[in-house]
Formats: sequence, structure tokens, C-alpha cells
Amino acid sequence: MSTMKVEFVNPFLESIINVLATMANTEAKPDKPFLKSEKSAKGDVTGIIGLTGEKAKGSLAITFTEPAILYIASQMLGETVLRVDASVADCVGEITNMVTGGAKKILSERGYTFDMAIPSTIIGENHSIIHKTSGRIICIPFETLAGSFFVEVCFGE
Amino acid sequence: MSTMKVEFVNPFLESIINVLATMANTEAKPDKPFLKSEKSAKGDVTGIIGLTGEKAKGSLAITFTEPAILYIASQMLGETVLRVDASVADCVGEITNMVTGGAKKILSERGYTFDMAIPSTIIGENHSIIHKTSGRIICIPFETLAGSFFVEVCFGE
Repeated sequence: MSTMKVEFVNPFLESIINVLATMANTEAKPDKPFLKSEKSAKGDVTGIIGLTGEKAKGSLAITFTEPAILYIASQMLGETVLRVDASVADCVGEITNMVTGGAKKILSERGYTFDMAIPSTIIGENHSIIHKTSGRIICIPFETLAGSFFVEVCFGE
Repeated sequence: MSTMKVEFVNPFLESIINVLATMANTEAKPDKPFLKSEKSAKGDVTGIIGLTGEKAKGSLAITFTEPAILYIASQMLGETVLRVDASVADCVGEITNMVTGGAKKILSERGYTFDMAIPSTIIGENHSIIHKTSGRIICIPFETLAGSFFVEVCFGE
């Protein structure tokens, strides 16, 4: 993993910890990042967004297990959410947008400017995401009180 | 649906028909497009890509049912594919890239330039995609000999 890649990943890591603390009063503890190849993170709800820039382009996916996102959405909405519905999808879109916005700001201070596309949310039990990139895909597992989620960042030329 | 929106959608429609005919010798017949709101296309494999531009940004999702993508991948690879595996994910990434590249070319001739992010493929039985956009989401259902798929295009400011 080149230095540039780590520079790209850390802002997303910082940003999701901040966003979940601020928006959902949820502490997210990062586990050891790994390079994703055959191994694939599986989850039930994913927020995904594309990024384009002059120097690189990429995509970010945040894949939540159902217990984790129900807890986070309940915290964000201030009421107990029992199933994955439109309001949960909204929360995931919002989280994805804010995390990317936060990371974009940090990256721009370091001379990498990116444009954000429109975030989408995928709902479906036990799905997985495969990024088509020449670059490497870095997966960071996170734990919350209620369950785990995975942040996948990939950038290519 | 404003005129600009139709201008954005037709190039993707043209492009997917061309790509599937050329790459997979598959005829794809479009059905009546609809504005997606509550109604959500469900499928088993989805290619998704973000687009950014000065005048608008958006995302494209192509959601295949399993029978449709197994047929298309078999046609592309020249061998019978019986289950959704990494080679199928590759085909979907490739289709998504080529469709977007084709549409990007047509749009740029009309004065709309876009940058493409990295395409991702989602695998998981019966998932659905929710786009977070201020703009409208247009869904075009397609039929092939082997089954159906859905193209969703959304653009916002």
C-alpha cells in the first residue's frame, strides 16, 4: 500500500468516528484494516458514494450489519427503530454524505480535491460489495456496542 | 420531469442496448420508464457508478435478476455460468463502465461533461437501491430472453 493510499484512507476513518459520535452518540472502535481481495465484508445495509478528482478517483462504501445500523439509526432519530426501512436508508445516506464531506475537507487541505457523486443506499440481507479498481481496496472493520460495520475505501488513477 | 432530465436518461438507455448487443449478443427491450419513489426495483446483482460534473451530478445503477445476469455473463464469457461469482461481478463492473462511458460520450457532445467514479458491484439476493438525491430517479425496466433488469438514473444539482 503506497503512502498516498494511507493518506486517502485515514481521513475517512477519522471522519466516520466523528460523524457517529456527533450524530448518533455512538462510539465506533476501528479494528485492524486489511486489504480486501477475495475476502469480502458482508452486511445488510450499505451506503456507497463515488468520488472523482484530477489526481485520483474512488469510491467509499460503509456496510452495516442490521443490529449496528438499527442502533445507530435509533440514536440519530431519537426513537427505537426496529426494522430497516426508509428512515434507516435516509440515515445511511446522511452518514455516507457527512463522512465523505468530512474526508473531502481533510483531503483538500492536503492538496487532493474531489467531487462527490450522489450517495446510494443498498438494502438486502447479507450482501457484499466488489469494487472494480486498479488500485487496492482497504477495508476497516469497526465495532460498536450494538454490532459491527465495515468501511471500504478504494482509489485508482 | 424536466427536459434536461430526459436528455440525461436517453444516452444511458441507448448505451446499455448497444453494450449488451455488442458484448453479450443480447437483445434488451426497454419497457416504459417510471419515476421511482416508494416503488423499488429489486434484483440480485447491481452495478453502480457515481458521476460528477460542473452542471450536475448523479449516479447510475443497473440491477439484474439472477437469471438475466447469468445469461448475459455466459454470453460475454463464452461459457455457461451457473452461479453468481467473481467472474459475474467482473462482467457487471465492465458493463457498468462501458454503459457509463458510452453515455458520457453522448452527453459530452451535448455540452454536459462528467467524470466517472469507480464502479462497484453489489451481490446479494433480492436487494434494493435507494438514491439520495434532490432530483428525480428514473427507472427503466428491460427484458431479455432470460429475464429482466432495471436501469436507474438519477441526477441532482
